[in-house]
Parts: sequence; C-alpha cells; structure tokens
Amino acid sequence: MRSIKHISIIGAGNVATHLGLALRSKGLNIDGVYSRKLRRAKILAKQLKSTATNKLKEINTSSHLYILAVSDDAIATVSKKMSKVLPSSAWVVHTSGSVSSSSINFDNRGVFYPLQSFSIERAIDFKEVPFCIFSESESMQKKLLALARKFSKSVQVVNDNERAVLHLAAVFSSNFSNHMYHIANQICTESNIDFDILKPLIQETANKLNSGSPHKMQTGPARRDDIVTLQKHIKQLSKQPKHKAIYKLISESIKNSYQ
Amino acid sequence: MRSIKHISIIGAGNVATHLGLALRSKGLNIDGVYSRKLRRAKILAKQLKSTATNKLKEINTSSHLYILAVSDDAIATVSKKMSKVLPSSAWVVHTSGSVSSSSINFDNRGVFYPLQSFSIERAIDFKEVPFCIFSESESMQKKLLALARKFSKSVQVVNDNERAVLHLAAVFSSNFSNHMYHIANQICTESNIDFDILKPLIQETANKLNSGSPHKMQTGPARRDDIVTLQKHIKQLSKQPKHKAIYKLISESIKNSYQ
Repeated sequence: MRSIKHISIIGAGNVATHLGLALRSKGLNIDGVYSRKLRRAKILAKQLKSTATNKLKEINTSSHLYILAVSDDAIATVSKKMSKVLPSSAWVVHTSGSVSSSSINFDNRGVFYPLQSFSIERAIDFKEVPFCIFSESESMQKKLLALARKFSKSVQVVNDNERAVLHLAAVFSSNFSNHMYHIANQICTESNIDFDILKPLIQETANKLNSGSPHKMQTGPARRDDIVTLQKHIKQLSKQPKHKAIYKLISESIKNSYQ
Repeated sequence: MRSIKHISIIGAGNVATHLGLALRSKGLNIDGVYSRKLRRAKILAKQLKSTATNKLKEINTSSHLYILAVSDDAIATVSKKMSKVLPSSAWVVHTSGSVSSSSINFDNRGVFYPLQSFSIERAIDFKEVPFCIFSESESMQKKLLALARKFSKSVQVVNDNERAVLHLAAVFSSNFSNHMYHIANQICTESNIDFDILKPLIQETANKLNSGSPHKMQTGPARRDDIVTLQKHIKQLSKQPKHKAIYKLISESIKNSYQ
C-alpha cells in the first residue's frame, strides 16, 4: 500500500492554509491548490511552492490524497464535481467537524478534522492540535492516521457520530465562551472600562481545567447561590434585555448543576 | 503618613490565603489571622508565620491595615463587630468585587480587589493579577496603591460603580464561559468521549484575545449563520431541553451581534 506523499488541497481558507503549511513543513508535496477564487489559490500556492487553479478540471489527477477544506455546505457539491475529473479510486477527505464522511462522492473517502479554531493571522502549533480521523476503508484510515501523526501528537479515530458530538461540544466550549467574552467586552465598553483588565481572569479560567473539571472549578454568585449579587447583576442589566435573558438562563443552569 | 507594614487578615478562604502569601512574600508582617473556624485560621496563620484566632476581640488593635477577605454577605456584619474592638481610626478594606466600600463600618475604608479567580489548589502569579483599588480617603488610597504595586504590575483606581460593572463582566467572561466548558464536558461524557480533546481549543479561544477583540475572533455556525449545522445541533440536543434553550439563545445573540 502506498503511503501518502503527494497531496492536492481543495480550498484556500483558514484550514486549508494552516494545514497546507503544516503538511509542507513535514516534507509532503503539495501537487496543487484549488479555490473558486484564483487570487486566494495563488496566495496559498505560493506559500506551499505549488500551483494554483480555480478550475476543478485542472487539478492534478494523480495525487495520493485530496483534502477538501471548503465550507461545510460546499463539500457535497465540490466532491461531486471532482468525481467527474478524478479516477474513481482517488482518496478524498474533508476537514469538517459537522459533515458526514458519506457526503463525499468517492468510494475511498474519509475525514481529516483538526479540532481547533483557526485564524489566518495566528500561527498554530500543530503538535497540540487534536486530529479526528475516520475512513470506512481500514487501509485508508491507517494511512490517514500515519499522516496526521507526522505533525500532531494527538491523533485518534473518531467516527461520524462521535465527531458530531465533539463538534457540538466545541461550539459550547469555544464559540459560546468567546461570545461570553464579547458580552463582557460590551458591558465594559459601555462604561468606558478597558476590557483588557479581564484577560488574566479569562486566561486563568481556561488554565484551571488542568487542575480539575469545569464543574469542580466553577465559582461566582450562581455557584454560591448568592441571591443578593444575582439580583444586583440583573438590575444592572435592566437596559440590556438580551444580556439579562442570557444572565438569567445561565445562572439558573449553573445553580441546577449543583442540585 | 505611615506606610503599610503590619496587616491583619480577616478571613481564611481562597482570597485570604493567596493574598496573605503574596503579602508575606513581599516582606509585610501579618499581625494575625481571624476566621470563624479556628482550624482554618490556624492553617493560614502557620503559612504566614502569624497567630490565629476565631474571636474578633482578640485581633491585633494596632495593625496598619485590616483586610476583610470574607464572603460578600459577611462584610457588613464582620466590620460592624470589628468597630467595637478597633480604634475608629483603623484602616479597613475588603476584597470583594460586588460589595460597596460603604458597607465597611469605619471612616478609613476602601477596596483591595484582586480581579482573579482563586482556588486553594492553584498557585497564582500575582504579578499578573489586576488590582482594583479604591478609598474615599485620598491618602489611604495612595498607600493602598503602593501596597498593591509591591506584587502586581497591574494596579488601578476603580470606584464602586466601575467595580460593579467589572464584576458583572467577570461573571460573563469567567463564570459563564466555565459553565460552557461544563456543558461541553457533559455532552462529551454522555457519549463516552474524553473532554480532554477539547482543551487545546479552549486554550486557543482564550489566547486569541491577544490577536483581536472577541467580536473579531468569533467563529462557528452561528457566526456564519450556517442554518443546516445550527438545526443539526438543536436536533442533537432534543433530549436536553435546558442545553437546547441555551444553545438557541446564545446562537441568536451571536447572530444579532453581526447584524
């Protein structure tokens, strides 16, 4: 069985860029970069010493692996178009947390999902990024695991159902906690207070998970059922009914989790 | 004007312990430790090479400063009791984020609020802890600022109103984001998935605030208004109506913040 050495990257966004750079740094050959937007394909291809195209029919037909790092709702459509260009035996994976591997219109399909939040402007240490790997084909899955292990120390097989659970949990622990930061920022800004003063607290709240479960680490007025403070806060939010609703619902949820 | 060199600590919980150790490490003398529970006063007093008591009438009457690190609802009561023992000129501060400085039953009163989440089991680098200082007395405030600057590089004057705003913002950015971690943990546990796989993501979500505002850093299905994924997640939560309600409310709030 061949090992994966030549890769085509379909997509040129955050995930495609970070993953492409990580693969390239481990000596993998990037056969080509496709993006609907030629300009973006070119920017990434240049970084990967590769070629760019915005036409699927121009992608290399002999890559060992095609990594589909496009938006969730484009995966099915793009893979269908690819199936008209590539041999039916091609290996195709996507990088999505929420899309089933069966959305890929190839027999040799799988998932290569980095469980991390990527931004173009932030460098990522891929050693620390957990990779969720899956393929119905055992031999393909084995090769995907070996590929991910080249740059990450945290690689595991995660099937479609488990990945759907993880993705939902990731929304709570990352997207929703970030929105809590945003509301805190708004509350500060409205009173001309610099949000930066909260950053050490935010950092420590995340770091504390190394000392115990979030349930054990919970602090604050809802945890203590400190009714005076809870009511004071609700009063402070009287002019922001949406934030007040969130305050009440989450405080109730915290209280309930200790009953 | 005297500078603060001798301190009595009223309370023996998380804040009293961490603060006492920080003060002691900077060469301050801890005149004594009071706690309702003698056992706890003794544990802390031993660490601070000081004496312990569970009787307010036994506290040292000549300390330069009394730090009231007791629970929010005990501040008024304890300071009232202290006023029967100490000279009326005594300097008394509390360490609370949400209680007004006027709750202290002394003329020379103030606030010495470390904006951080403390747990007994976690060491804290006080250099990074923002201190919010306040006193109606300018000379007292000046001395409190100087004291805090002995161990923290982030010390500022924050009046009662501003502190109330900050405390509310701290609840969102710390207590509520921690509860989001907890819900993620529950979602994982119910499907026998190890929550640890989410920790690098949680860490990076907090770290990202160094690259831009939370509003700029927001990712996820609600941010993209990805209706297919949002509905999939809501369906996944059909057996957890409380988590579903939180999911819907926060997703709406994220969407609204980009309109």
